[in-house]
Amino acid sequence: MTEENPAIAAIATPIGIGGISVARISGKGAFEIADKIFLGKSKLNDAPSHTAHFGKIVDHDGSFIDEVVAVVFRKPSSYTCEDVVEISCHGGYIVTERILQEMIAAGARPAEPGEFTKRAFLNGRLDLSQAEAIGDLIHSRSEAAYRSSIRHLSGELSRRIKSVSDELLNLASLLELELDFSEENVEFANRKSLENRLENADRIVRELLSTYPVGRVYNEGVRASITGKPNVGKSSLLNALLQEKRAIVSETPGTTRDTISEGVSINGVLFRLTDTAGLRETVDAIEREGVERARKEAEESDMVLLVLDYSSYDYNGSDPLFQQLTEICTQRDVKLVKVWNKIDLYKGAAPRKPEDGFFVSALRGDGVDSLKDGLYRMALGQYVNESSVVVTNARHRDVLSRACKSLGLALETLRGGKPSEFVALDLRRGLNTLGEITGEITTDDMLNNIFSKFCIGK
Amino acid sequence: MTEENPAIAAIATPIGIGGISVARISGKGAFEIADKIFLGKSKLNDAPSHTAHFGKIVDHDGSFIDEVVAVVFRKPSSYTCEDVVEISCHGGYIVTERILQEMIAAGARPAEPGEFTKRAFLNGRLDLSQAEAIGDLIHSRSEAAYRSSIRHLSGELSRRIKSVSDELLNLASLLELELDFSEENVEFANRKSLENRLENADRIVRELLSTYPVGRVYNEGVRASITGKPNVGKSSLLNALLQEKRAIVSETPGTTRDTISEGVSINGVLFRLTDTAGLRETVDAIEREGVERARKEAEESDMVLLVLDYSSYDYNGSDPLFQQLTEICTQRDVKLVKVWNKIDLYKGAAPRKPEDGFFVSALRGDGVDSLKDGLYRMALGQYVNESSVVVTNARHRDVLSRACKSLGLALETLRGGKPSEFVALDLRRGLNTLGEITGEITTDDMLNNIFSKFCIGK
Repeated sequence: MTEENPAIAAIATPIGIGGISVARISGKGAFEIADKIFLGKSKLNDAPSHTAHFGKIVDHDGSFIDEVVAVVFRKPSSYTCEDVVEISCHGGYIVTERILQEMIAAGARPAEPGEFTKRAFLNGRLDLSQAEAIGDLIHSRSEAAYRSSIRHLSGELSRRIKSVSDELLNLASLLELELDFSEENVEFANRKSLENRLENADRIVRELLSTYPVGRVYNEGVRASITGKPNVGKSSLLNALLQEKRAIVSETPGTTRDTISEGVSINGVLFRLTDTAGLRETVDAIEREGVERARKEAEESDMVLLVLDYSSYDYNGSDPLFQQLTEICTQRDVKLVKVWNKIDLYKGAAPRKPEDGFFVSALRGDGVDSLKDGLYRMALGQYVNESSVVVTNARHRDVLSRACKSLGLALETLRGGKPSEFVALDLRRGLNTLGEITGEITTDDMLNNIFSKFCIGK
Repeated sequence: MTEENPAIAAIATPIGIGGISVARISGKGAFEIADKIFLGKSKLNDAPSHTAHFGKIVDHDGSFIDEVVAVVFRKPSSYTCEDVVEISCHGGYIVTERILQEMIAAGARPAEPGEFTKRAFLNGRLDLSQAEAIGDLIHSRSEAAYRSSIRHLSGELSRRIKSVSDELLNLASLLELELDFSEENVEFANRKSLENRLENADRIVRELLSTYPVGRVYNEGVRASITGKPNVGKSSLLNALLQEKRAIVSETPGTTRDTISEGVSINGVLFRLTDTAGLRETVDAIEREGVERARKEAEESDMVLLVLDYSSYDYNGSDPLFQQLTEICTQRDVKLVKVWNKIDLYKGAAPRKPEDGFFVSALRGDGVDSLKDGLYRMALGQYVNESSVVVTNARHRDVLSRACKSLGLALETLRGGKPSEFVALDLRRGLNTLGEITGEITTDDMLNNIFSKFCIGK
């Protein structure tokens, strides 16, 4: 750790009505600042690390502000590796704000978004991808998003990147060593073996990169629209899918259309299901309008559930609605899923054999579990049940993508029999790029950009 | 403390995005339960009180859930006077919920609203009015509401009630003592002195009761509508009043009318200012409609700010709008405040002398501070600058009102020269009633009613 950072203060808990709130101070003089406003049995400045103290917060006039518990963390055994005081006070809007104001009046500076975590990173407690995982963890809105960020927090992505980086460093060093002996025309490494090792590193980076679509599903969930002709049971299907416990986020900010959107968690992945009410009402009356709405809905979705009536077999591939829907889904790479509903109403002797899809009775619940499982598998593709590291962060995707380019160039140069120094140069470039994930290579702009997306108090 | 209560668990911080969240367990076996999910250097069950421990939360399969800090509070030195563990984890929706679920799986019961505070009360750490003050504190939305609840939390109301109760107990005991010696016809207390002392107690209770309208202003704020003819500067006045920092609550839930409502804190009291846009647009076109809107607005307000143009002196007392406004305000006990705007535009030689009101230039800001001060004084009436205890709680108002009735009866009986036992009976009734404030006299229904209004986790 270098020079001590000046003390910063912020409310660390969410703003709102709740039993308790926590305000914290971190940095140089944290205890002295806290002691100006905290009246307990003894000074916090004299307290051992990791001890909790009941007391009162008072303002500069000595007026009583609240009863609190202050917890002392001495550097480097704290979240930021700095001296930290966390003050738990009664919850609500006013008290916490008052206490923060007193902390600032006593000498702390208001913390910027993510500044505590930034200090934890700068003081070496976390690498950059772990710091980012904390931000993702806090903002995670589904079990899947949470699970992937907790794995990043525990350093799985960093370790993967580290192993590739180590290999690239070895390869680059070998090539650079050759340069030192270039007069003697020595080859320290067999070209074929070099190529194999480089291909291997390249493959690992490409594999990580290829997990990003799944990472997006983890983080943002799957937008699925339910469409179909009137009276096929779209709303019943929506209800059947929602039957199990609702996702924690049921409101969808930014939804301005006259559709119902509900979230449901399927194996921890958040599906946002939209019932296209508009389509339902207008498809018969003005078919063109209906198709138009279905088109828009499909364009904004990751998946379209086309509900069909199994009991009356109402699917006709040449119907303009179905035709255009299929076309759009193909064009936009949206998954089109046929859901044959009302299997309980089918009166025929032999079961029908529609070409594909899921077979359910939304009303009775038959087949709904298989449908859910199917939707989950489609959303995650090859990553179902796999416990590999998944890239969820757009910045990491960009870094990996740039690293891929450098490694590709290195391979090309190597295969083309170009001088070692060019290969080494590309490898070094790839190495530096990967360093941006773990934070070995950073710029102020990059850090500001990352931490400004955090909430204040983290 | 009687038998130990079974362990309860809840999220104590507000639900939402934030740096950290706190989940807590209180009651019998709190440490054993926490140790089932917490992996630190040592067992929490072995940890001394008031110590903080870094560790991991794991589920029953041993899967990593989060990095946390657990703080141990041993009975009776905790919020509830029971064994308590508070676990600070990363914030957000998913993590905290996961940890709570693990606490419950490990043997804690989900806490009911206010159950921690209820236990603090039942275990004697707080009296009932202090427990209620904690609820009010958390929900306070203005400095004034916060200040009054912090005073109740520190026990000011309880002490006031206690002193009256002590006096009533003394008086009742004296009278009851006389009854024991009734054969001898002894009078232990001079009737006149008894009457004086009783009058004094009665006066204190009445005074407390009379503070309730101010308490309502503290808690709920003041609804003030801004009305007037078009182009008198209503919106400018609204903006001028809002110039200073906004109140913390700027959105008004439940506002369905087409009016703008904004909150501003004046000396800590929340004023909800409504600009009657409707009136502004329709008063000239369809005057009847304009009057109707002003009427409705006035009826729902505590205060009406009638904006008038000082530069053109547009006030005419016989104008149906103004006439009806005055009438409504008188009928409904709504304060009508004339605000003469545009004093900067007045071109006359000698200043006009309108009968009353405030004189401002909303545009330049002249007179706005005096207006604010005036509004504040009107809202609080005699309680401006007074630091007396104010009753803010509707339950306390009801209790005081019933106590008043008993004391009034006691006085009447005493003055009528009725037998001492009747006076003593009324005094005892008053005494019991007052005991409901501090919680010496409680029923299950009463406690359930009080604590069910708390948030879960407090």
